[in-house]
Amino acid sequence: MKLLEERIRRDGKIREDGAVLKVDSFLNHQIDVGLYNEIGKEFFRLFADERVTKILTIEASGIGIACIAGQYFDVPVLFAKKSKSKNIDGGVYTARVESFTHGKVYDVMVAKEFLRPEDRVLIIDDFLANGAALDGLIQIVREAGATVVGAGICIEKAFQSGGERIRAKGVRVEALARIKSMGEDGVEFC
Amino acid sequence: MKLLEERIRRDGKIREDGAVLKVDSFLNHQIDVGLYNEIGKEFFRLFADERVTKILTIEASGIGIACIAGQYFDVPVLFAKKSKSKNIDGGVYTARVESFTHGKVYDVMVAKEFLRPEDRVLIIDDFLANGAALDGLIQIVREAGATVVGAGICIEKAFQSGGERIRAKGVRVEALARIKSMGEDGVEFC
Repeated sequence: MKLLEERIRRDGKIREDGAVLKVDSFLNHQIDVGLYNEIGKEFFRLFADERVTKILTIEASGIGIACIAGQYFDVPVLFAKKSKSKNIDGGVYTARVESFTHGKVYDVMVAKEFLRPEDRVLIIDDFLANGAALDGLIQIVREAGATVVGAGICIEKAFQSGGERIRAKGVRVEALARIKSMGEDGVEFC
Repeated sequence: MKLLEERIRRDGKIREDGAVLKVDSFLNHQIDVGLYNEIGKEFFRLFADERVTKILTIEASGIGIACIAGQYFDVPVLFAKKSKSKNIDGGVYTARVESFTHGKVYDVMVAKEFLRPEDRVLIIDDFLANGAALDGLIQIVREAGATVVGAGICIEKAFQSGGERIRAKGVRVEALARIKSMGEDGVEFC
Protein backbone atom coordinates (compact mmCIF):
# COMPACT_ATOMS: atom_id res chain seq x y z
CA MET A 1 0.00 0.00 0.00
CA LYS A 2 1.84 3.00 -1.36
CA LEU A 3 0.13 5.50 0.94
CA LEU A 4 1.36 3.73 4.07
CA GLU A 5 4.87 3.15 2.69
CA GLU A 6 5.19 6.82 1.80
CA ARG A 7 3.97 7.84 5.23
CA ILE A 8 6.50 5.55 6.92
CA ARG A 9 9.28 7.01 4.77
CA ARG A 10 8.19 10.54 5.59
CA ASP A 11 7.23 10.35 9.26
CA GLY A 12 8.65 7.08 10.58
CA LYS A 13 11.71 7.32 12.80
CA ILE A 14 14.28 4.61 13.24
CA ARG A 15 15.82 4.51 16.67
CA GLU A 16 19.57 4.74 16.93
CA ASP A 17 20.00 1.00 17.52
CA GLY A 18 18.18 0.28 14.24
CA ALA A 19 15.83 -2.19 15.93
CA VAL A 20 12.75 -0.06 16.49
CA LEU A 21 10.68 1.80 13.93
CA LYS A 22 8.70 4.59 15.56
CA VAL A 23 5.46 5.42 13.81
CA ASP A 24 3.85 7.05 16.78
CA SER A 25 3.09 10.34 15.06
CA PHE A 26 0.44 8.71 12.83
CA LEU A 27 -0.16 5.04 13.68
CA ASN A 28 0.11 3.97 17.29
CA HIS A 29 0.18 6.87 19.71
CA GLN A 30 -1.07 9.83 17.73
CA ILE A 31 -3.44 8.49 15.09
CA ASP A 32 -4.19 9.84 11.63
CA VAL A 33 -7.80 8.69 11.35
CA GLY A 34 -7.88 9.37 7.61
CA LEU A 35 -4.96 6.99 7.15
CA TYR A 36 -6.72 4.39 9.34
CA ASN A 37 -9.67 4.72 7.01
CA GLU A 38 -7.58 3.95 3.95
CA ILE A 39 -6.05 0.99 5.80
CA GLY A 40 -9.50 -0.31 6.77
CA LYS A 41 -10.68 0.02 3.17
CA GLU A 42 -7.65 -1.89 1.92
CA PHE A 43 -8.18 -4.73 4.43
CA PHE A 44 -11.76 -4.91 3.21
CA ARG A 45 -10.64 -5.06 -0.41
CA LEU A 46 -8.28 -7.91 0.45
CA PHE A 47 -10.65 -9.96 2.62
CA ALA A 48 -14.08 -8.98 1.27
CA ASP A 49 -14.76 -12.48 -0.10
CA GLU A 50 -13.88 -14.30 3.11
CA ARG A 51 -17.32 -14.01 4.73
CA VAL A 52 -15.72 -12.51 7.84
CA THR A 53 -18.05 -12.60 10.88
CA LYS A 54 -15.70 -11.07 13.44
CA ILE A 55 -12.54 -9.01 13.64
CA LEU A 56 -10.10 -9.88 16.41
CA THR A 57 -7.30 -7.64 17.55
CA ILE A 58 -5.18 -7.09 20.63
CA GLU A 59 -4.95 -4.08 22.88
CA ALA A 60 -3.90 -1.38 22.61
CA SER A 61 -2.81 -0.11 19.21
CA GLY A 62 -4.76 -2.66 17.19
CA ILE A 63 -8.11 -1.47 18.52
CA GLY A 64 -8.50 1.72 16.54
CA ILE A 65 -7.51 0.14 13.24
CA ALA A 66 -9.83 -2.79 13.87
CA CYS A 67 -12.78 -0.50 14.69
CA ILE A 68 -12.30 1.59 11.57
CA ALA A 69 -11.93 -1.58 9.47
CA GLY A 70 -15.00 -3.00 11.20
CA GLN A 71 -17.10 -0.28 9.59
CA TYR A 72 -16.32 -1.73 6.16
CA PHE A 73 -16.91 -5.35 7.13
CA ASP A 74 -19.96 -4.49 9.24
CA VAL A 75 -19.06 -7.08 11.87
CA PRO A 76 -18.27 -6.82 15.60
CA VAL A 77 -14.71 -6.16 16.69
CA LEU A 78 -13.25 -8.11 19.57
CA PHE A 79 -10.04 -7.16 21.30
CA ALA A 80 -7.93 -9.54 23.34
CA LYS A 81 -7.04 -8.09 26.73
CA LYS A 82 -3.54 -8.15 28.10
CA SER A 83 -4.25 -8.39 31.80
CA LYS A 84 -7.02 -9.91 33.81
CA SER A 85 -9.27 -7.13 34.99
CA LYS A 86 -12.10 -7.32 37.49
CA ASN A 87 -14.46 -7.03 34.55
CA ILE A 88 -13.65 -10.36 32.97
CA ASP A 89 -15.01 -13.33 34.74
CA GLY A 90 -16.41 -16.58 33.50
CA GLY A 91 -14.60 -18.60 30.90
CA VAL A 92 -11.77 -17.10 28.93
CA TYR A 93 -9.43 -18.36 26.25
CA THR A 94 -5.87 -17.39 27.05
CA ALA A 95 -2.53 -17.46 25.29
CA ARG A 96 0.92 -16.51 26.46
CA VAL A 97 2.70 -13.85 24.40
CA GLU A 98 6.27 -12.63 24.55
CA SER A 99 6.36 -8.98 23.55
CA PHE A 100 9.32 -7.81 21.52
CA THR A 101 8.46 -4.16 22.04
CA HIS A 102 7.99 -4.30 25.79
CA GLY A 103 10.50 -7.04 26.50
CA LYS A 104 8.16 -9.05 28.67
CA VAL A 105 5.80 -11.99 28.72
CA TYR A 106 2.10 -11.53 29.26
CA ASP A 107 -1.17 -13.40 28.92
CA VAL A 108 -3.83 -12.31 26.46
CA MET A 109 -7.42 -13.35 26.91
CA VAL A 110 -10.76 -13.34 25.19
CA ALA A 111 -14.07 -14.17 26.86
CA LYS A 112 -15.32 -17.50 25.52
CA GLU A 113 -18.82 -16.20 24.89
CA PHE A 114 -17.61 -13.95 22.07
CA LEU A 115 -15.99 -16.60 19.86
CA ARG A 116 -18.13 -19.36 18.38
CA PRO A 117 -17.14 -22.34 16.22
CA GLU A 118 -19.07 -20.84 13.30
CA ASP A 119 -17.09 -17.59 13.42
CA ARG A 120 -14.81 -16.67 10.52
CA VAL A 121 -12.26 -14.41 12.11
CA LEU A 122 -10.03 -11.77 10.54
CA ILE A 123 -7.15 -10.85 12.82
CA ILE A 124 -5.94 -7.25 12.57
CA ASP A 125 -2.86 -5.71 14.15
CA ASP A 126 -0.52 -2.79 13.62
CA PHE A 127 2.80 -4.68 13.60
CA LEU A 128 4.08 -8.14 12.77
CA ALA A 129 7.67 -8.85 13.75
CA ASN A 130 8.47 -12.11 15.51
CA GLY A 131 4.80 -13.03 15.33
CA ALA A 132 4.25 -13.74 19.01
CA ALA A 133 1.05 -11.72 19.33
CA LEU A 134 -0.35 -13.17 16.11
CA ASP A 135 0.50 -16.69 17.27
CA GLY A 136 -1.42 -16.04 20.47
CA LEU A 137 -4.49 -14.71 18.66
CA ILE A 138 -4.50 -17.62 16.18
CA GLN A 139 -4.25 -20.04 19.09
CA ILE A 140 -7.24 -18.43 20.79
CA VAL A 141 -9.41 -18.53 17.65
CA ARG A 142 -8.57 -22.19 17.09
CA GLU A 143 -9.20 -23.05 20.71
CA ALA A 144 -12.71 -21.70 20.17
CA GLY A 145 -13.08 -24.00 17.16
CA ALA A 146 -13.50 -20.97 14.92
CA THR A 147 -11.78 -20.29 11.58
CA VAL A 148 -8.92 -17.85 11.02
CA VAL A 149 -9.55 -16.44 7.55
CA GLY A 150 -6.34 -14.47 7.70
CA ALA A 151 -4.42 -11.64 9.26
CA GLY A 152 -4.38 -8.03 8.13
CA ILE A 153 -1.21 -6.31 9.30
CA CYS A 154 -0.25 -2.68 8.80
CA ILE A 155 3.53 -3.04 9.01
CA GLU A 156 5.47 -6.27 8.74
CA LYS A 157 9.13 -6.35 9.64
CA ALA A 158 9.87 -8.91 6.95
CA PHE A 159 13.48 -9.22 8.14
CA GLN A 160 12.14 -10.90 11.26
CA SER A 161 10.79 -14.42 11.07
CA GLY A 162 7.17 -14.09 12.19
CA GLY A 163 5.47 -13.55 8.85
CA GLU A 164 7.32 -16.31 7.04
CA ARG A 165 6.75 -18.77 9.86
CA ILE A 166 3.03 -18.07 10.13
CA ARG A 167 2.44 -18.11 6.36
CA ALA A 168 4.23 -21.48 6.27
CA LYS A 169 1.55 -22.78 8.61
CA GLY A 170 -1.06 -21.97 5.97
CA VAL A 171 -2.41 -18.74 7.43
CA ARG A 172 -3.04 -15.97 4.92
CA VAL A 173 -1.10 -12.93 6.10
CA GLU A 174 -1.55 -9.65 4.24
CA ALA A 175 0.77 -6.84 5.27
CA LEU A 176 0.23 -3.39 3.80
CA ALA A 177 3.86 -2.34 4.20
CA ARG A 178 6.59 -4.98 4.32
CA ILE A 179 9.96 -3.75 5.54
CA LYS A 180 12.93 -5.55 4.05
CA SER A 181 15.52 -3.64 6.03
CA MET A 182 15.92 -0.47 8.03
CA GLY A 183 18.83 1.48 9.38
CA GLU A 184 20.65 4.77 9.11
CA ASP A 185 19.71 5.15 5.45
CA GLY A 186 16.01 4.79 6.17
CA VAL A 187 13.55 2.05 5.36
CA GLU A 188 13.61 -0.33 2.40
CA PHE A 189 10.38 -2.10 1.50
CA CYS A 190 10.03 -5.56 -0.04
CA MET B 1 -28.61 9.09 24.66
CA LYS B 2 -31.54 6.69 24.52
CA LEU B 3 -29.81 4.19 22.23
CA LEU B 4 -26.98 3.64 24.69
CA GLU B 5 -29.27 3.53 27.73
CA GLU B 6 -31.45 0.93 26.06
CA ARG B 7 -28.44 -1.12 25.11
CA ILE B 8 -27.12 -1.02 28.68
CA ARG B 9 -30.52 -2.13 29.98
CA ARG B 10 -30.68 -4.96 27.47
CA ASP B 11 -27.11 -6.26 27.38
CA GLY B 12 -25.34 -4.80 30.42
CA LYS B 13 -24.70 -7.17 33.29
CA ILE B 14 -24.31 -6.14 36.89
CA ARG B 15 -21.93 -8.28 38.85
CA GLU B 16 -23.19 -9.93 42.01
CA ASP B 17 -21.52 -7.40 44.28
CA GLY B 18 -23.38 -4.58 42.53
CA ALA B 19 -20.17 -2.59 42.02
CA VAL B 20 -19.29 -3.46 38.42
CA LEU B 21 -21.36 -2.96 35.30
CA LYS B 22 -20.23 -5.27 32.53
CA VAL B 23 -20.79 -3.91 29.05
CA ASP B 24 -18.22 -6.11 27.40
CA SER B 25 -20.59 -7.60 24.83
CA PHE B 26 -20.91 -4.29 22.99
CA LEU B 27 -18.65 -1.55 24.41
CA ASN B 28 -15.28 -2.56 25.79
CA HIS B 29 -14.26 -6.09 24.85
CA GLN B 30 -16.53 -7.02 21.98
CA ILE B 31 -17.43 -3.82 20.16
CA ASP B 32 -20.59 -2.93 18.27
CA VAL B 33 -19.07 -0.60 15.70
CA GLY B 34 -22.48 0.70 14.65
CA LEU B 35 -23.12 1.79 18.23
CA TYR B 36 -19.67 3.43 18.37
CA ASN B 37 -20.66 5.36 15.29
CA GLU B 38 -23.80 6.72 16.92
CA ILE B 39 -21.73 7.62 19.99
CA GLY B 40 -19.15 9.40 17.84
CA LYS B 41 -21.88 11.31 16.04
CA GLU B 42 -23.41 12.38 19.36
CA PHE B 43 -20.07 13.61 20.71
CA PHE B 44 -19.69 15.63 17.54
CA ARG B 45 -23.16 17.11 17.94
CA LEU B 46 -22.29 18.12 21.52
CA PHE B 47 -18.82 19.54 20.85
CA ALA B 48 -19.04 20.63 17.21
CA ASP B 49 -18.70 24.33 18.11
CA GLU B 50 -15.64 23.90 20.29
CA ARG B 51 -13.06 24.10 17.50
CA VAL B 52 -11.52 20.81 18.67
CA THR B 53 -8.03 20.24 17.25
CA LYS B 54 -7.25 16.93 18.95
CA ILE B 55 -9.02 14.07 20.68
CA LEU B 56 -7.25 12.54 23.66
CA THR B 57 -8.15 9.20 25.17
CA ILE B 58 -6.50 6.50 27.24
CA GLU B 59 -5.72 2.93 26.34
CA ALA B 60 -7.31 0.55 25.90
CA SER B 61 -11.09 0.78 25.61
CA GLY B 62 -11.18 4.49 24.84
CA ILE B 63 -9.20 4.10 21.63
CA GLY B 64 -11.89 2.66 19.38
CA ILE B 65 -14.51 5.18 20.44
CA ALA B 66 -12.04 8.05 20.01
CA CYS B 67 -11.06 6.86 16.51
CA ILE B 68 -14.66 6.55 15.36
CA ALA B 69 -15.47 9.97 16.86
CA GLY B 70 -12.31 11.34 15.22
CA GLN B 71 -13.89 10.71 11.82
CA TYR B 72 -16.58 13.26 12.59
CA PHE B 73 -14.24 15.88 14.03
CA ASP B 74 -11.60 15.26 11.37
CA VAL B 75 -8.76 15.71 13.86
CA PRO B 76 -5.96 13.41 15.05
CA VAL B 77 -6.60 11.08 17.95
CA LEU B 78 -3.99 10.71 20.66
CA PHE B 79 -4.06 7.95 23.23
CA ALA B 80 -2.26 8.11 26.56
CA LYS B 81 -0.22 4.98 27.21
CA LYS B 82 -0.34 3.12 30.46
CA SER B 83 3.17 1.78 30.65
CA LYS B 84 6.49 2.97 29.40
CA SER B 85 7.35 0.98 26.29
CA LYS B 86 10.62 0.94 24.40
CA ASN B 87 8.88 2.96 21.72
CA ILE B 88 8.42 6.11 23.77
CA ASP B 89 11.51 8.09 24.37
CA GLY B 90 12.14 11.78 24.55
CA GLY B 91 9.95 14.02 26.61
CA VAL B 92 6.66 12.78 27.94
CA TYR B 93 3.93 14.25 30.09
CA THR B 94 2.94 11.81 32.80
CA ALA B 95 0.19 11.54 35.38
CA ARG B 96 -0.43 8.98 38.08
CA VAL B 97 -3.80 7.23 37.93
CA GLU B 98 -5.46 4.92 40.42
CA SER B 99 -7.65 2.46 38.55
CA PHE B 100 -10.93 1.49 40.15
CA THR B 101 -11.46 -1.39 37.72
CA HIS B 102 -8.02 -2.92 38.03
CA GLY B 103 -7.39 -2.00 41.64
CA LYS B 104 -3.94 -0.64 41.00
CA VAL B 105 -1.96 2.54 40.43
CA TYR B 106 -0.26 3.21 37.13
CA ASP B 107 1.34 6.03 35.18
CA VAL B 108 -0.14 7.34 31.96
CA MET B 109 1.95 9.21 29.49
CA VAL B 110 1.75 11.24 26.32
CA ALA B 111 4.71 12.26 24.18
CA LYS B 112 5.22 16.01 24.51
CA GLU B 113 5.54 16.53 20.77
CA PHE B 114 1.86 15.69 20.22
CA LEU B 115 0.32 18.29 22.52
CA ARG B 116 0.83 21.98 21.78
CA PRO B 117 -0.32 25.06 23.70
CA GLU B 118 -2.63 25.98 20.81
CA ASP B 119 -4.44 22.62 20.95
CA ARG B 120 -8.10 22.50 21.93
CA VAL B 121 -8.50 19.00 23.29
CA LEU B 122 -11.62 16.89 23.64
CA ILE B 123 -11.08 14.01 26.05
CA ILE B 124 -13.04 10.84 25.28
CA ASP B 125 -13.40 7.74 27.43
CA ASP B 126 -15.77 4.85 27.92
CA PHE B 127 -16.36 5.17 31.68
CA LEU B 128 -16.32 7.87 34.31
CA ALA B 129 -16.58 6.70 37.91
CA ASN B 130 -14.21 8.13 40.48
CA GLY B 131 -12.66 10.27 37.75
CA ALA B 132 -9.06 9.25 38.28
CA ALA B 133 -8.29 8.60 34.61
CA LEU B 134 -10.00 11.82 33.56
CA ASP B 135 -8.08 13.77 36.22
CA GLY B 136 -4.85 12.37 34.80
CA LEU B 137 -5.72 13.30 31.23
CA ILE B 138 -6.79 16.83 32.20
CA GLN B 139 -3.53 17.25 34.10
CA ILE B 140 -1.53 16.20 31.05
CA VAL B 141 -3.37 18.58 28.70
CA ARG B 142 -2.87 21.47 31.11
CA GLU B 143 0.77 20.63 31.62
CA ALA B 144 1.15 21.05 27.86
CA GLY B 145 -0.45 24.48 28.15
CA ALA B 146 -3.30 23.31 25.92
CA THR B 147 -7.03 23.79 26.49
CA VAL B 148 -9.46 21.10 27.64
CA VAL B 149 -12.70 21.89 25.81
CA GLY B 150 -14.50 19.11 27.62
CA ALA B 151 -14.88 15.40 28.15
CA GLY B 152 -17.16 13.06 26.23
CA ILE B 153 -17.96 10.00 28.31
CA CYS B 154 -20.04 7.02 27.26
CA ILE B 155 -21.16 5.84 30.71
CA GLU B 156 -20.96 7.86 33.89
CA LYS B 157 -21.54 6.18 37.22
CA ALA B 158 -23.20 9.27 38.64
CA PHE B 159 -23.43 7.64 42.07
CA GLN B 160 -19.66 7.94 42.29
CA SER B 161 -18.06 11.30 42.83
CA GLY B 162 -15.86 11.79 39.76
CA GLY B 163 -18.28 13.60 37.46
CA GLU B 164 -19.52 16.02 40.10
CA ARG B 165 -16.03 16.80 41.29
CA ILE B 166 -14.64 17.44 37.81
CA ARG B 167 -17.64 19.54 36.68
CA ALA B 168 -17.19 21.63 39.85
CA LYS B 169 -13.71 22.48 38.60
CA GLY B 170 -15.28 24.04 35.52
CA VAL B 171 -14.66 21.24 33.02
CA ARG B 172 -17.56 20.49 30.69
CA VAL B 173 -18.36 16.80 31.07
CA GLU B 174 -20.96 15.25 28.77
CA ALA B 175 -21.95 11.68 29.56
CA LEU B 176 -24.24 9.85 27.15
CA ALA B 177 -25.64 7.52 29.81
CA ARG B 178 -25.62 8.59 33.47
CA ILE B 179 -26.29 5.83 35.95
CA LYS B 180 -28.04 6.92 39.12
CA SER B 181 -28.00 3.51 40.74
CA MET B 182 -27.56 -0.13 39.86
CA GLY B 183 -28.22 -3.37 41.65
CA GLU B 184 -30.29 -6.53 41.55
CA ASP B 185 -33.22 -4.71 39.91
CA GLY B 186 -31.08 -3.44 37.07
CA VAL B 187 -29.87 0.01 36.16
CA GLU B 188 -31.56 3.33 36.86
CA PHE B 189 -30.48 6.33 34.81
CA CYS B 190 -30.44 9.97 35.94
